[in-house]
Amino acid sequence: MDNDTLKAVQHCMDGDPFARRLGTQVEEIRPGFARARLKLSPELMNFVGVPHGAVVFAVADQAFAAACNSRGTVAVALNVSISFLAAAAPDATLVAEAEEIHCGSRTSTYHILVKDDQGRLIANFQGLAYRKKTPIAEIVAPEDSPGAAG
Amino acid sequence: MDNDTLKAVQHCMDGDPFARRLGTQVEEIRPGFARARLKLSPELMNFVGVPHGAVVFAVADQAFAAACNSRGTVAVALNVSISFLAAAAPDATLVAEAEEIHCGSRTSTYHILVKDDQGRLIANFQGLAYRKKTPIAEIVAPEDSPGAAG
Amino acid sequence: MDNDTLKAVQHCMDGDPFARRLGTQVEEIRPGFARARLKLSPELMNFVGVPHGAVVFAVADQAFAAACNSRGTVAVALNVSISFLAAAAPDATLVAEAEEIHCGSRTSTYHILVKDDQGRLIANFQGLAYRKKTPIAEIVAPEDSPGAAG
Amino acid sequence: MDNDTLKAVQHCMDGDPFARRLGTQVEEIRPGFARARLKLSPELMNFVGVPHGAVVFAVADQAFAAACNSRGTVAVALNVSISFLAAAAPDATLVAEAEEIHCGSRTSTYHILVKDDQGRLIANFQGLAYRKKTPIAEIVAPEDSPGAAG
Repeated sequence: MDNDTLKAVQHCMDGDPFARRLGTQVEEIRPGFARARLKLSPELMNFVGVPHGAVVFAVADQAFAAACNSRGTVAVALNVSISFLAAAAPDATLVAEAEEIHCGSRTSTYHILVKDDQGRLIANFQGLAYRKKTPIAEIVAPEDSPGAAG
Repeated sequence: MDNDTLKAVQHCMDGDPFARRLGTQVEEIRPGFARARLKLSPELMNFVGVPHGAVVFAVADQAFAAACNSRGTVAVALNVSISFLAAAAPDATLVAEAEEIHCGSRTSTYHILVKDDQGRLIANFQGLAYRKKTPIAEIVAPEDSPGAAG
Repeated sequence: MDNDTLKAVQHCMDGDPFARRLGTQVEEIRPGFARARLKLSPELMNFVGVPHGAVVFAVADQAFAAACNSRGTVAVALNVSISFLAAAAPDATLVAEAEEIHCGSRTSTYHILVKDDQGRLIANFQGLAYRKKTPIAEIVAPEDSPGAAG
Repeated sequence: MDNDTLKAVQHCMDGDPFARRLGTQVEEIRPGFARARLKLSPELMNFVGVPHGAVVFAVADQAFAAACNSRGTVAVALNVSISFLAAAAPDATLVAEAEEIHCGSRTSTYHILVKDDQGRLIANFQGLAYRKKTPIAEIVAPEDSPGAAG
Protein backbone atom coordinates (compact mmCIF):
# COMPACT_ATOMS: atom_id res chain seq x y z
CA MET A 1 0.00 0.00 0.00
CA ASP A 2 1.61 3.22 -1.09
CA ASN A 3 0.75 6.83 -0.46
CA ASP A 4 -0.55 7.32 -4.00
CA THR A 5 -3.34 4.84 -3.36
CA LEU A 6 -4.46 6.60 -0.21
CA LYS A 7 -4.40 9.92 -2.06
CA ALA A 8 -6.51 8.41 -4.82
CA VAL A 9 -9.08 7.17 -2.29
CA GLN A 10 -9.11 10.57 -0.56
CA HIS A 11 -9.62 12.21 -3.94
CA CYS A 12 -12.57 9.88 -4.63
CA MET A 13 -14.13 10.65 -1.25
CA ASP A 14 -13.65 14.42 -1.64
CA GLY A 15 -15.47 14.29 -4.97
CA ASP A 16 -18.33 12.00 -3.92
CA PRO A 17 -21.47 13.92 -4.96
CA PHE A 18 -23.81 12.76 -2.18
CA ALA A 19 -21.18 13.19 0.53
CA ARG A 20 -20.62 16.75 -0.71
CA ARG A 21 -24.31 17.52 -0.70
CA LEU A 22 -24.70 16.21 2.84
CA GLY A 23 -21.47 17.76 4.08
CA THR A 24 -19.72 14.52 5.08
CA GLN A 25 -15.94 14.81 5.13
CA VAL A 26 -13.47 11.94 5.21
CA GLU A 27 -10.68 13.37 7.31
CA GLU A 28 -8.31 10.42 7.65
CA ILE A 29 -7.60 7.30 5.59
CA ARG A 30 -5.01 4.66 6.38
CA PRO A 31 -4.87 1.08 5.09
CA GLY A 32 -7.88 -0.58 6.76
CA PHE A 33 -9.01 2.54 8.61
CA ALA A 34 -10.99 5.71 7.94
CA ARG A 35 -12.71 8.46 9.87
CA ALA A 36 -15.58 10.60 8.57
CA ARG A 37 -17.28 13.63 10.10
CA LEU A 38 -20.58 15.44 9.60
CA LYS A 39 -21.82 18.63 11.28
CA LEU A 40 -25.57 18.30 11.79
CA SER A 41 -28.05 20.98 10.74
CA PRO A 42 -31.86 21.40 10.94
CA GLU A 43 -32.49 19.91 7.48
CA LEU A 44 -30.84 16.62 8.58
CA MET A 45 -33.46 15.97 11.28
CA ASN A 46 -36.39 13.56 11.15
CA PHE A 47 -40.02 14.35 11.92
CA VAL A 48 -39.54 14.42 15.68
CA GLY A 49 -36.58 16.73 15.58
CA VAL A 50 -33.68 14.33 16.11
CA PRO A 51 -31.00 13.40 13.54
CA HIS A 52 -32.48 11.17 10.83
CA GLY A 53 -31.40 7.50 10.92
CA ALA A 54 -30.37 7.73 7.27
CA VAL A 55 -28.02 10.60 8.13
CA VAL A 56 -26.37 8.55 10.88
CA PHE A 57 -26.09 5.71 8.36
CA ALA A 58 -24.59 8.03 5.75
CA VAL A 59 -21.65 9.22 7.84
CA ALA A 60 -20.84 5.63 8.89
CA ASP A 61 -21.19 4.46 5.29
CA GLN A 62 -18.71 7.08 4.09
CA ALA A 63 -16.11 5.89 6.61
CA PHE A 64 -16.86 2.31 5.48
CA ALA A 65 -16.40 3.23 1.80
CA ALA A 66 -13.09 4.96 2.47
CA ALA A 67 -11.77 2.09 4.60
CA CYS A 68 -12.79 -0.73 2.28
CA ASN A 69 -11.33 1.06 -0.74
CA SER A 70 -8.09 1.83 1.12
CA ARG A 71 -6.58 -1.52 0.09
CA GLY A 72 -6.00 -0.38 -3.46
CA THR A 73 -8.84 -2.10 -5.32
CA VAL A 74 -12.46 -1.09 -5.66
CA ALA A 75 -14.75 -2.58 -2.98
CA VAL A 76 -18.55 -2.62 -3.02
CA ALA A 77 -20.91 -2.83 -0.03
CA LEU A 78 -22.64 -6.20 0.21
CA ASN A 79 -24.33 -6.03 3.60
CA VAL A 80 -24.62 -3.60 6.50
CA SER A 81 -26.15 -4.13 9.93
CA ILE A 82 -26.67 -0.97 12.01
CA SER A 83 -27.97 -0.59 15.57
CA PHE A 84 -29.22 2.82 16.68
CA LEU A 85 -28.13 3.28 20.30
CA ALA A 86 -28.87 6.91 21.19
CA ALA A 87 -30.17 10.06 19.52
CA ALA A 88 -27.52 12.72 18.94
CA ALA A 89 -28.28 16.36 19.71
CA PRO A 90 -29.60 18.30 16.69
CA ASP A 91 -26.49 20.48 16.54
CA ALA A 92 -23.90 17.79 17.26
CA THR A 93 -21.07 16.72 14.97
CA LEU A 94 -21.12 13.01 14.12
CA VAL A 95 -17.80 11.18 13.88
CA ALA A 96 -17.58 7.67 12.39
CA GLU A 97 -14.46 5.52 12.62
CA ALA A 98 -14.15 2.38 10.50
CA GLU A 99 -11.75 -0.35 11.58
CA GLU A 100 -11.03 -3.36 9.40
CA ILE A 101 -11.36 -6.64 11.25
CA HIS A 102 -10.85 -8.92 8.25
CA CYS A 103 -9.57 -8.57 4.69
CA GLY A 104 -9.83 -11.74 2.63
CA SER A 105 -9.37 -12.32 -1.07
CA ARG A 106 -13.10 -11.93 -1.78
CA THR A 107 -14.59 -9.92 1.08
CA SER A 108 -13.56 -7.52 3.82
CA THR A 109 -15.31 -6.66 7.09
CA TYR A 110 -15.43 -3.49 9.20
CA HIS A 111 -16.59 -2.31 12.61
CA ILE A 112 -17.77 1.28 12.43
CA LEU A 113 -18.81 3.23 15.52
CA VAL A 114 -20.62 6.56 15.22
CA LYS A 115 -20.14 8.96 18.14
CA ASP A 116 -21.08 12.56 18.79
CA ASP A 117 -18.44 15.19 19.53
CA GLN A 118 -18.71 14.41 23.25
CA GLY A 119 -17.66 10.82 22.53
CA ARG A 120 -21.10 9.41 23.27
CA LEU A 121 -21.94 6.30 21.20
CA ILE A 122 -24.77 6.92 18.71
CA ALA A 123 -24.70 3.85 16.44
CA ASN A 124 -22.92 0.57 15.80
CA PHE A 125 -22.42 -0.28 12.09
CA GLN A 126 -21.01 -3.55 10.76
CA GLY A 127 -20.05 -3.56 7.08
CA LEU A 128 -19.27 -6.43 4.72
CA ALA A 129 -17.70 -5.49 1.37
CA TYR A 130 -17.05 -7.43 -1.83
CA ARG A 131 -13.58 -6.81 -3.22
CA LYS A 132 -13.32 -6.35 -6.96
CA LYS A 133 -10.15 -6.65 -8.98
CA THR A 134 -10.30 -3.09 -10.39
CA PRO A 135 -7.48 -0.85 -9.13
CA ILE A 136 -8.83 2.21 -7.32
CA ALA A 137 -6.59 4.39 -9.47
CA GLU A 138 -8.81 3.60 -12.46
CA ILE A 139 -11.75 5.17 -10.67
CA VAL A 140 -10.13 8.51 -10.01
CA ALA A 141 -11.39 9.68 -13.37
CA PRO A 142 -14.88 8.19 -13.09
CA GLU A 143 -16.45 7.02 -16.31
CA ASP A 144 -18.91 4.17 -16.58
CA SER A 145 -18.08 2.08 -13.55
CA PRO A 146 -20.45 -0.70 -12.50
CA GLY A 147 -20.76 0.16 -8.77
CA ALA A 148 -18.80 0.78 -5.59
CA ALA A 149 -19.35 0.86 -1.84
CA GLY A 150 -20.84 4.06 -0.48
CA MET B 1 -56.58 1.88 13.72
CA ASP B 2 -58.61 4.80 12.46
CA ASN B 3 -58.12 7.11 9.55
CA ASP B 4 -57.02 9.98 11.76
CA THR B 5 -53.95 8.04 12.86
CA LEU B 6 -52.90 7.30 9.29
CA LYS B 7 -53.40 10.98 8.42
CA ALA B 8 -51.25 11.96 11.39
CA VAL B 9 -48.46 9.63 10.24
CA GLN B 10 -48.71 10.94 6.66
CA HIS B 11 -48.52 14.48 8.03
CA CYS B 12 -45.37 13.57 9.99
CA MET B 13 -43.77 12.02 6.89
CA ASP B 14 -44.66 14.97 4.68
CA GLY B 15 -42.99 17.33 7.14
CA ASP B 16 -39.85 15.24 7.80
CA PRO B 17 -36.98 17.68 7.12
CA PHE B 18 -34.42 15.20 5.76
CA ALA B 19 -36.96 13.40 3.59
CA ARG B 20 -37.96 16.79 2.13
CA ARG B 21 -34.36 17.73 1.46
CA LEU B 22 -33.69 14.43 -0.29
CA GLY B 23 -37.01 14.37 -2.12
CA THR B 24 -38.37 11.14 -0.61
CA GLN B 25 -42.14 10.93 -0.67
CA VAL B 26 -44.28 8.50 1.29
CA GLU B 27 -47.11 7.82 -1.09
CA GLU B 28 -49.14 5.18 0.75
CA ILE B 29 -49.60 4.23 4.40
CA ARG B 30 -51.84 1.49 5.70
CA PRO B 31 -51.65 -0.27 9.08
CA GLY B 32 -48.40 -2.27 8.87
CA PHE B 33 -47.55 -1.14 5.34
CA ALA B 34 -45.96 1.85 3.62
CA ARG B 35 -44.47 2.74 0.24
CA ALA B 36 -41.90 5.49 -0.36
CA ARG B 37 -40.48 6.84 -3.60
CA LEU B 38 -37.41 8.85 -4.57
CA LYS B 39 -36.44 10.18 -8.01
CA LEU B 40 -32.67 10.00 -8.34
CA SER B 41 -30.53 12.93 -9.47
CA PRO B 42 -26.79 13.51 -10.04
CA GLU B 43 -26.16 14.83 -6.52
CA LEU B 44 -27.39 11.51 -5.06
CA MET B 45 -24.61 9.50 -6.72
CA ASN B 46 -21.44 8.14 -5.11
CA PHE B 47 -17.89 8.58 -6.36
CA VAL B 48 -18.21 6.01 -9.14
CA GLY B 49 -21.40 7.47 -10.52
CA VAL B 50 -24.01 5.05 -9.17
CA PRO B 51 -26.67 5.82 -6.54
CA HIS B 52 -25.07 6.18 -3.09
CA GLY B 53 -25.77 3.34 -0.64
CA ALA B 54 -26.96 5.86 1.93
CA VAL B 55 -29.57 7.12 -0.55
CA VAL B 56 -30.88 3.59 -1.13
CA PHE B 57 -30.95 3.17 2.66
CA ALA B 58 -32.80 6.48 3.08
CA VAL B 59 -35.75 5.62 0.86
CA ALA B 60 -36.14 2.21 2.55
CA ASP B 61 -35.81 3.82 5.98
CA GLN B 62 -38.60 6.28 5.19
CA ALA B 63 -40.95 3.43 4.25
CA PHE B 64 -39.87 1.66 7.46
CA ALA B 65 -40.57 4.77 9.58
CA ALA B 66 -44.02 5.23 8.05
CA ALA B 67 -44.94 1.56 8.48
CA CYS B 68 -43.73 1.17 12.06
CA ASN B 69 -45.49 4.35 13.12
CA SER B 70 -48.72 3.31 11.37
CA ARG B 71 -49.90 1.40 14.47
CA GLY B 72 -50.76 4.58 16.34
CA THR B 73 -47.83 4.88 18.74
CA VAL B 74 -44.34 6.22 18.15
CA ALA B 75 -41.81 3.58 17.09
CA VAL B 76 -38.01 3.99 17.00
CA ALA B 77 -35.53 2.08 14.85
CA LEU B 78 -33.42 -0.37 16.86
CA ASN B 79 -31.64 -2.35 14.16
CA VAL B 80 -31.49 -2.51 10.38
CA SER B 81 -29.77 -5.03 8.15
CA ILE B 82 -29.50 -4.10 4.48
CA SER B 83 -28.10 -6.07 1.53
CA PHE B 84 -27.18 -4.22 -1.64
CA LEU B 85 -28.15 -6.43 -4.56
CA ALA B 86 -27.76 -4.31 -7.70
CA ALA B 87 -26.88 -0.74 -8.65
CA ALA B 88 -29.83 1.32 -9.91
CA ALA B 89 -29.44 3.53 -12.97
CA PRO B 90 -28.47 7.12 -12.10
CA ASP B 91 -31.80 8.49 -13.32
CA ALA B 92 -34.04 5.75 -11.94
CA THR B 93 -36.83 6.22 -9.42
CA LEU B 94 -36.42 4.08 -6.29
CA VAL B 95 -39.54 2.56 -4.75
CA ALA B 96 -39.45 0.98 -1.27
CA GLU B 97 -42.29 -1.08 0.15
CA ALA B 98 -42.36 -1.97 3.84
CA GLU B 99 -44.40 -4.94 5.01
CA GLU B 100 -44.89 -5.74 8.67
CA ILE B 101 -44.15 -9.34 9.51
CA HIS B 102 -44.53 -9.04 13.28
CA CYS B 103 -45.99 -6.51 15.71
CA GLY B 104 -45.46 -7.40 19.36
CA SER B 105 -46.02 -5.35 22.49
CA ARG B 106 -42.40 -4.19 22.58
CA THR B 107 -41.00 -4.52 19.07
CA SER B 108 -42.15 -4.74 15.47
CA THR B 109 -40.38 -6.13 12.41
CA TYR B 110 -40.52 -5.24 8.70
CA HIS B 111 -39.35 -6.56 5.35
CA ILE B 112 -38.57 -3.69 3.00
CA LEU B 113 -37.61 -4.24 -0.63
CA VAL B 114 -36.18 -1.42 -2.73
CA LYS B 115 -36.79 -1.69 -6.47
CA ASP B 116 -36.21 0.59 -9.42
CA ASP B 117 -39.09 1.75 -11.60
CA GLN B 118 -38.57 -1.30 -13.84
CA GLY B 119 -39.27 -3.57 -10.87
CA ARG B 120 -35.66 -4.73 -10.58
CA LEU B 121 -34.60 -5.51 -7.01
CA ILE B 122 -31.94 -3.08 -5.71
CA ALA B 123 -31.79 -3.77 -1.96
CA ASN B 124 -33.24 -5.94 0.80
CA PHE B 125 -33.79 -4.11 4.12
CA GLN B 126 -34.90 -5.74 7.36
CA GLY B 127 -36.01 -3.35 10.12
CA LEU B 128 -36.58 -3.93 13.84
CA ALA B 129 -38.37 -1.15 15.73
CA TYR B 130 -38.95 -0.47 19.43
CA ARG B 131 -42.52 0.54 20.17
CA LYS B 132 -43.01 3.39 22.63
CA LYS B 133 -46.23 4.18 24.44
CA THR B 134 -46.50 7.75 23.08
CA PRO B 135 -49.49 8.20 20.75
CA ILE B 136 -48.40 9.36 17.30
CA ALA B 137 -50.97 12.15 17.50
CA GLU B 138 -48.83 13.85 20.14
CA ILE B 139 -45.99 14.10 17.64
CA VAL B 140 -47.94 15.92 14.96
CA ALA B 141 -47.00 19.19 16.65
CA PRO B 142 -43.36 18.28 17.35
CA GLU B 143 -41.89 19.78 20.48
CA ASP B 144 -39.19 18.10 22.52
CA SER B 145 -39.57 14.48 21.62
CA PRO B 146 -36.89 11.96 22.58
CA GLY B 147 -36.47 10.18 19.23
CA ALA B 148 -38.29 8.23 16.53
CA ALA B 149 -37.56 5.84 13.71
CA GLY B 150 -36.39 7.44 10.53
CA MET C 1 -33.07 -26.93 -12.86
CA ASP C 2 -33.73 -30.61 -13.11
CA ASN C 3 -34.99 -33.13 -10.61
CA ASP C 4 -31.57 -34.71 -10.22
CA THR C 5 -30.19 -31.50 -8.76
CA LEU C 6 -32.95 -31.27 -6.18
CA LYS C 7 -32.39 -34.92 -5.27
CA ALA C 8 -28.67 -34.23 -4.86
CA VAL C 9 -29.39 -31.31 -2.53
CA GLN C 10 -31.87 -33.39 -0.53
CA HIS C 11 -29.26 -36.13 -0.27
CA CYS C 12 -26.72 -33.58 1.03
CA MET C 13 -29.19 -32.28 3.62
CA ASP C 14 -30.17 -35.78 4.76
CA GLY C 15 -26.53 -36.60 5.37
CA ASP C 16 -25.53 -33.33 7.08
CA PRO C 17 -23.89 -34.48 10.34
CA PHE C 18 -24.92 -31.58 12.58
CA ALA C 19 -28.48 -31.52 11.25
CA ARG C 20 -28.72 -35.24 11.99
CA ARG C 21 -27.39 -34.79 15.50
CA LEU C 22 -29.87 -31.99 16.20
CA GLY C 23 -32.77 -33.70 14.46
CA THR C 24 -33.39 -31.06 11.80
CA GLN C 25 -35.11 -32.41 8.70
CA VAL C 26 -35.37 -30.70 5.35
CA GLU C 27 -38.77 -31.80 4.14
CA GLU C 28 -39.18 -29.87 0.92
CA ILE C 29 -36.80 -28.36 -1.63
CA ARG C 30 -37.77 -26.57 -4.79
CA PRO C 31 -35.66 -24.14 -6.85
CA GLY C 32 -35.32 -21.09 -4.56
CA PHE C 33 -37.36 -22.57 -1.72
CA ALA C 34 -36.90 -24.96 1.19
CA ARG C 35 -38.65 -25.92 4.41
CA ALA C 36 -36.95 -27.45 7.46
CA ARG C 37 -38.47 -28.81 10.66
CA LEU C 38 -37.17 -29.58 14.15
CA LYS C 39 -39.04 -31.15 17.08
CA LEU C 40 -37.80 -29.54 20.28
CA SER C 41 -36.64 -31.52 23.30
CA PRO C 42 -35.32 -30.63 26.78
CA GLU C 43 -31.67 -30.72 25.74
CA LEU C 44 -32.31 -27.96 23.18
CA MET C 45 -33.32 -25.42 25.84
CA ASN C 46 -31.23 -22.57 27.25
CA PHE C 47 -30.60 -21.80 30.91
CA VAL C 48 -34.02 -20.32 31.51
CA GLY C 49 -35.89 -23.22 30.00
CA VAL C 50 -36.85 -21.83 26.60
CA PRO C 51 -35.51 -22.99 23.21
CA HIS C 52 -31.91 -21.86 22.75
CA GLY C 53 -31.34 -19.05 20.24
CA ALA C 54 -28.72 -21.18 18.49
CA VAL C 55 -31.32 -23.92 17.97
CA VAL C 56 -33.75 -21.47 16.39
CA PHE C 57 -30.86 -20.25 14.21
CA ALA C 58 -29.95 -23.83 13.28
CA VAL C 59 -33.34 -24.78 11.85
CA ALA C 60 -33.51 -21.53 9.84
CA ASP C 61 -29.93 -22.03 8.66
CA GLN C 62 -30.75 -25.52 7.37
CA ALA C 63 -33.65 -24.18 5.30
CA PHE C 64 -31.30 -21.43 4.05
CA ALA C 65 -28.62 -23.98 3.09
CA ALA C 66 -31.11 -26.13 1.20
CA ALA C 67 -32.63 -23.16 -0.63
CA CYS C 68 -29.37 -21.49 -1.63
CA ASN C 69 -27.94 -24.78 -2.89
CA SER C 70 -31.12 -25.57 -4.83
CA ARG C 71 -29.88 -23.64 -7.89
CA GLY C 72 -27.43 -26.36 -8.81
CA THR C 73 -24.12 -24.87 -7.65
CA VAL C 74 -22.61 -24.80 -4.19
CA ALA C 75 -23.49 -21.67 -2.18
CA VAL C 76 -21.85 -20.52 1.06
CA ALA C 77 -23.33 -18.31 3.76
CA LEU C 78 -21.80 -14.83 3.81
CA ASN C 79 -24.04 -12.98 6.24
CA VAL C 80 -27.11 -13.66 8.33
CA SER C 81 -29.24 -11.24 10.34
CA ILE C 82 -31.73 -12.83 12.73
CA SER C 83 -34.35 -11.19 14.97
CA PHE C 84 -35.81 -13.20 17.84
CA LEU C 85 -39.48 -12.31 18.09
CA ALA C 86 -41.02 -14.75 20.58
CA ALA C 87 -39.98 -17.77 22.63
CA ALA C 88 -41.40 -21.07 21.39
CA ALA C 89 -42.84 -23.57 23.84
CA PRO C 90 -40.26 -26.16 25.02
CA ASP C 91 -42.11 -28.99 23.28
CA ALA C 92 -43.02 -27.17 20.08
CA THR C 93 -41.93 -28.13 16.57
CA LEU C 94 -40.09 -25.36 14.75
CA VAL C 95 -40.73 -24.92 11.03
CA ALA C 96 -38.51 -22.68 8.89
CA GLU C 97 -39.37 -21.69 5.34
CA ALA C 98 -36.76 -20.07 3.10
CA GLU C 99 -37.87 -18.01 0.14
CA GLU C 100 -35.42 -16.64 -2.40
CA ILE C 101 -35.87 -12.96 -3.08
CA HIS C 102 -32.85 -12.51 -5.32
CA CYS C 103 -30.45 -14.77 -7.22
CA GLY C 104 -27.62 -12.93 -8.94
CA SER C 105 -24.48 -14.23 -10.59
CA ARG C 106 -22.43 -13.78 -7.43
CA THR C 107 -24.83 -13.73 -4.48
CA SER C 108 -28.34 -14.84 -3.56
CA THR C 109 -30.65 -13.59 -0.81
CA TYR C 110 -33.36 -15.30 1.26
CA HIS C 111 -36.13 -14.44 3.68
CA ILE C 112 -36.55 -17.20 6.24
CA LEU C 113 -39.34 -17.16 8.82
CA VAL C 114 -39.31 -19.57 11.76
CA LYS C 115 -42.72 -20.46 13.20
CA ASP C 116 -43.96 -22.91 15.77
CA ASP C 117 -46.48 -25.61 14.87
CA GLN C 118 -49.32 -23.21 15.75
CA GLY C 119 -48.09 -20.82 13.08
CA ARG C 120 -46.84 -18.26 15.59
CA LEU C 121 -43.80 -16.30 14.37
CA ILE C 122 -40.64 -17.09 16.40
CA ALA C 123 -37.82 -15.53 14.38
CA ASN C 124 -37.04 -13.56 11.23
CA PHE C 125 -33.83 -14.64 9.42
CA GLN C 126 -32.31 -12.88 6.41
CA GLY C 127 -29.56 -14.80 4.61
CA LEU C 128 -27.01 -13.67 2.03
CA ALA C 129 -25.09 -16.41 0.22
CA TYR C 130 -22.06 -16.38 -2.05
CA ARG C 131 -22.52 -18.55 -5.12
CA LYS C 132 -19.57 -20.68 -6.14
CA LYS C 133 -19.10 -22.28 -9.53
CA THR C 134 -18.88 -25.86 -8.19
CA PRO C 135 -21.83 -28.03 -9.27
CA ILE C 136 -23.71 -29.41 -6.29
CA ALA C 137 -23.47 -32.88 -7.80
CA GLU C 138 -19.73 -32.87 -7.07
CA ILE C 139 -20.49 -32.51 -3.36
CA VAL C 140 -22.71 -35.54 -3.08
CA ALA C 141 -19.62 -37.61 -2.41
CA PRO C 142 -17.97 -35.18 0.01
CA GLU C 143 -14.19 -35.14 0.00
CA ASP C 144 -12.04 -32.10 0.66
CA SER C 145 -14.40 -29.25 -0.09
CA PRO C 146 -13.49 -25.71 0.98
CA GLY C 147 -16.80 -24.72 2.64
CA ALA C 148 -20.55 -24.42 2.12
CA ALA C 149 -23.55 -22.70 3.65
CA GLY C 150 -25.02 -24.35 6.71
CA MET D 1 -21.38 -5.50 40.02
CA ASP D 2 -20.35 -7.93 42.71
CA ASN D 3 -18.75 -11.32 42.53
CA ASP D 4 -21.98 -13.11 43.48
CA THR D 5 -23.61 -11.89 40.28
CA LEU D 6 -20.79 -13.17 38.10
CA LYS D 7 -20.93 -16.52 39.92
CA ALA D 8 -24.68 -16.67 39.31
CA VAL D 9 -24.17 -16.04 35.57
CA GLN D 10 -21.40 -18.66 35.42
CA HIS D 11 -23.72 -21.10 37.20
CA CYS D 12 -26.44 -20.40 34.61
CA MET D 13 -24.03 -20.94 31.73
CA ASP D 14 -22.63 -24.15 33.23
CA GLY D 15 -26.15 -25.55 33.47
CA ASP D 16 -27.41 -24.43 30.06
CA PRO D 17 -28.78 -27.65 28.51
CA PHE D 18 -27.97 -26.94 24.85
CA ALA D 19 -24.48 -25.63 25.65
CA ARG D 20 -23.83 -28.83 27.61
CA ARG D 21 -25.06 -30.99 24.78
CA LEU D 22 -22.86 -29.20 22.26
CA GLY D 23 -19.87 -28.96 24.57
CA THR D 24 -19.62 -25.16 24.72
CA GLN D 25 -17.91 -23.87 27.83
CA VAL D 26 -17.96 -20.31 29.12
CA GLU D 27 -14.52 -19.95 30.61
CA GLU D 28 -14.45 -16.31 31.67
CA ILE D 29 -17.09 -13.74 32.60
CA ARG D 30 -16.44 -10.17 33.66
CA PRO D 31 -18.88 -7.24 33.62
CA GLY D 32 -19.45 -6.62 29.91
CA PHE D 33 -17.15 -9.41 28.73
CA ALA D 34 -17.24 -13.17 28.23
CA ARG D 35 -15.26 -15.86 26.44
CA ALA D 36 -16.65 -19.22 25.31
CA ARG D 37 -14.88 -22.22 23.82
CA LEU D 38 -15.95 -25.26 21.82
CA LYS D 39 -13.81 -28.20 20.67
CA LEU D 40 -15.08 -29.32 17.27
CA SER D 41 -15.89 -32.93 16.44
CA PRO D 42 -17.15 -34.80 13.34
CA GLU D 43 -20.83 -34.53 14.33
CA LEU D 44 -20.57 -30.72 14.31
CA MET D 45 -19.72 -30.59 10.59
CA ASN D 46 -22.04 -29.67 7.72
CA PHE D 47 -22.60 -31.65 4.54
CA VAL D 48 -19.32 -30.61 2.93
CA GLY D 49 -17.23 -31.50 5.93
CA VAL D 50 -16.54 -28.09 7.45
CA PRO D 51 -17.91 -26.79 10.78
CA HIS D 52 -21.64 -26.04 10.49
CA GLY D 53 -22.59 -22.34 10.48
CA ALA D 54 -25.04 -22.98 13.31
CA VAL D 55 -22.19 -24.36 15.44
CA VAL D 56 -20.10 -21.24 14.82
CA PHE D 57 -23.18 -19.19 15.72
CA ALA D 58 -23.74 -21.25 18.88
CA VAL D 59 -20.34 -20.63 20.43
CA ALA D 60 -20.61 -16.88 19.70
CA ASP D 61 -24.15 -16.82 21.06
CA GLN D 62 -23.03 -18.41 24.32
CA ALA D 63 -20.38 -15.72 24.82
CA PHE D 64 -23.05 -13.12 23.97
CA ALA D 65 -25.48 -14.60 26.52
CA ALA D 66 -22.85 -14.63 29.26
CA ALA D 67 -21.74 -11.07 28.53
CA CYS D 68 -25.19 -9.51 28.27
CA ASN D 69 -26.32 -11.21 31.49
CA SER D 70 -23.15 -10.12 33.32
CA ARG D 71 -24.73 -6.80 34.30
CA GLY D 72 -26.91 -8.40 36.95
CA THR D 73 -30.30 -8.45 35.22
CA VAL D 74 -31.67 -10.91 32.68
CA ALA D 75 -31.05 -9.89 29.05
CA VAL D 76 -32.68 -11.42 25.96
CA ALA D 77 -31.32 -11.50 22.41
CA LEU D 78 -33.21 -9.17 20.08
CA ASN D 79 -31.07 -9.24 16.95
CA VAL D 80 -27.85 -10.80 15.74
CA SER D 81 -25.92 -10.18 12.55
CA ILE D 82 -23.17 -12.68 11.75
CA SER D 83 -20.66 -12.74 8.89
CA PHE D 84 -18.88 -15.98 8.07
CA LEU D 85 -15.30 -15.12 7.14
CA ALA D 86 -13.43 -18.42 6.90
CA ALA D 87 -14.04 -22.11 7.48
CA ALA D 88 -12.34 -23.51 10.57
CA ALA D 89 -10.54 -26.86 10.40
CA PRO D 90 -12.77 -29.82 11.39
CA ASP D 91 -10.71 -30.50 14.51
CA ALA D 92 -10.14 -26.91 15.60
CA THR D 93 -11.26 -25.36 18.86
CA LEU D 94 -13.46 -22.29 18.40
CA VAL D 95 -13.03 -19.38 20.81
CA ALA D 96 -15.56 -16.54 20.96
CA GLU D 97 -14.95 -13.33 22.86
CA ALA D 98 -17.82 -10.91 23.51
CA GLU D 99 -17.06 -7.27 24.26
CA GLU D 100 -19.75 -4.83 25.29
CA ILE D 101 -19.71 -1.64 23.30
CA HIS D 102 -22.87 -0.11 24.78
CA CYS D 103 -25.08 -0.73 27.78
CA GLY D 104 -28.15 1.49 27.93
CA SER D 105 -31.21 1.32 30.15
CA ARG D 106 -33.15 -0.72 27.59
CA THR D 107 -30.65 -2.42 25.30
CA SER D 108 -27.01 -3.48 25.24
CA THR D 109 -24.73 -4.19 22.27
CA TYR D 110 -21.78 -6.54 21.79
CA HIS D 111 -19.01 -7.26 19.31
CA ILE D 112 -18.20 -10.96 19.28
CA LEU D 113 -15.32 -12.39 17.24
CA VAL D 114 -14.98 -16.14 16.71
CA LYS D 115 -11.44 -17.38 16.11
CA ASP D 116 -9.84 -20.79 15.84
CA ASP D 117 -7.11 -21.87 18.23
CA GLN D 118 -4.49 -20.42 15.85
CA GLY D 119 -6.08 -16.98 16.22
CA ARG D 120 -7.49 -16.97 12.70
CA LEU D 121 -10.77 -15.04 12.39
CA ILE D 122 -13.72 -17.33 11.56
CA ALA D 123 -16.78 -15.12 12.11
CA ASN D 124 -17.89 -11.63 13.13
CA PHE D 125 -21.04 -11.55 15.32
CA GLN D 126 -22.86 -8.39 16.40
CA GLY D 127 -25.46 -8.86 19.15
CA LEU D 128 -28.22 -6.56 20.38
CA ALA D 129 -29.93 -7.53 23.65
CA TYR D 130 -33.03 -6.29 25.44
CA ARG D 131 -32.47 -5.75 29.15
CA LYS D 132 -35.22 -6.93 31.46
CA LYS D 133 -35.66 -5.84 35.06
CA THR D 134 -35.43 -9.38 36.51
CA PRO D 135 -32.31 -9.90 38.65
CA ILE D 136 -30.17 -12.73 37.30
CA ALA D 137 -30.09 -14.25 40.79
CA GLU D 138 -33.77 -15.16 40.40
CA ILE D 139 -32.90 -17.32 37.38
CA VAL D 140 -30.33 -19.47 39.14
CA ALA D 141 -33.13 -21.81 40.19
CA PRO D 142 -34.93 -21.85 36.81
CA GLU D 143 -38.67 -22.23 36.97
CA ASP D 144 -41.07 -20.78 34.44
CA SER D 145 -39.16 -17.86 33.00
CA PRO D 146 -40.40 -16.16 29.84
CA GLY D 147 -37.15 -16.15 27.85
CA ALA D 148 -33.49 -15.13 27.89
CA ALA D 149 -30.63 -14.57 25.48
CA GLY D 150 -28.86 -17.71 24.37
